[in-house]
This record gives sequence, C-alpha cells and structure tokens, in this order.
Amino acid sequence: MSYQPGLHILSRIYTTQEELLVSPDSLRTYLSEEIKRLDLHAVGEVYHSFDGGGYTGVVCLTESHIAFHTWPEFGLLTVDVFLSNYQKNNESKARDFWKSIQNFFQSSEFQYEEVYR
Amino acid sequence: MSYQPGLHILSRIYTTQEELLVSPDSLRTYLSEEIKRLDLHAVGEVYHSFDGGGYTGVVCLTESHIAFHTWPEFGLLTVDVFLSNYQKNNESKARDFWKSIQNFFQSSEFQYEEVYR
Repeated sequence: MSYQPGLHILSRIYTTQEELLVSPDSLRTYLSEEIKRLDLHAVGEVYHSFDGGGYTGVVCLTESHIAFHTWPEFGLLTVDVFLSNYQKNNESKARDFWKSIQNFFQSSEFQYEEVYR
Repeated sequence: MSYQPGLHILSRIYTTQEELLVSPDSLRTYLSEEIKRLDLHAVGEVYHSFDGGGYTGVVCLTESHIAFHTWPEFGLLTVDVFLSNYQKNNESKARDFWKSIQNFFQSSEFQYEEVYR
C-alpha cells in the first residue's frame, strides 16, 4: 500500500503575452513537440475556449496529465504537470517540462509548488 | 495581479473495490450525475483505459477540472478536484465533491491535501 504515484507541480504563471492566454493554438503545437522531446506519451486531450477569453487545455499522458487554465483578464494561467513514476522516476522530467512551459509563456513571475502524492 | 484561481484538492484514495479501478464505466455515469447535482458544467472529457489494468479519466469544467488515475495493482487511485472561484467561491463545493468521490469508491483510507493556488 506504499506506492506513491509521483510528483505533481502546481503553478500560477503571470505573463504579458496576452495572445498566448487567449488562443490555445500555439500552446497546442508547442506541447505536441515538447511531449515528443521528453519521450512522454499522449493518450487524449481536451482544448476548450471560453467566450470572452481564456481557455482550458488538458493532455492525458500514459504518465498522468498536464493541465492549463488561462485568465487573460488577469494576465495569468494555472499549470499542472503531474508525471507518475510507474515505470521509472519522472521527477526531473516534470521539472524540466515546467521550466520549458515557463519559457514558452515568457514569464518571470510565478508561484510554484511541488506535491509528492 | 492578486487573483487566486481557487482550491485544488489532491488526494490518493485506497479501495478494495477493484472493479471501480479497472473499468471507468461506473465512474463516468456517477460523475455525469454528480456534476449536475453540484451545478457544475462539463466542457470536455478524456477516458483512457490501459492494457493490463487501470485508467485515466479527466473531465474539464467551466470551473476548471477533475482528474482520476487508477492503479488496480496497488488498490489505489489519485483524485484531483480543482474548482476555480471565477464567478463565485466554490471551495465548499470542491470539498463536497471530494467527499462524494470518497464515498463512491467506498474508501476509508486516503491521503488528502488542499492547495490554494
């Protein structure tokens, strides 16, 4: 009963790149490349744009999931990177992925939390 | 810049109800009813079953998302309930939802963490 699935990074990222918070198109392209680079494996996704701005993007992975919710009116988004350690330890990969996401949104202001779960 | 999206409950739930960890069918039916009961609003979902057992289920909501990853071989699943407070405070609703999920899995053993994000 002692199996711990893995590391979940919860973050709030601030950015002045409003277009990246309004349309999920660039994120979607970026994520599909990034998932390949990190040798992760997508098994399904949802992208939903809200009337009046903002979107939700979730990609399910064999290694768990990543999730994005944007609020362009506040210049921020939430980011979840949860990679389980089922077949190997993915903790450094989760941090690598988050750092890449931060760069993608050209952000220097953020809140960051790690939960081992 | 001070908007805080909301409450994110991260949980690991242990259960002896193996069938509920193997097939997402019952969870899917339960969640669609529960989302109505709580006056939440689904905007997309992914359900993916893994060869050899276990599944991922994610439902995106206008209020953010809920996510499930099961490991039948360990008798456990992870549960995320993240409800944002964009139009109203949904913190008590998030706790209500999690408690209902715990009952659904007939679990008395769990790990539970709340993150305000």
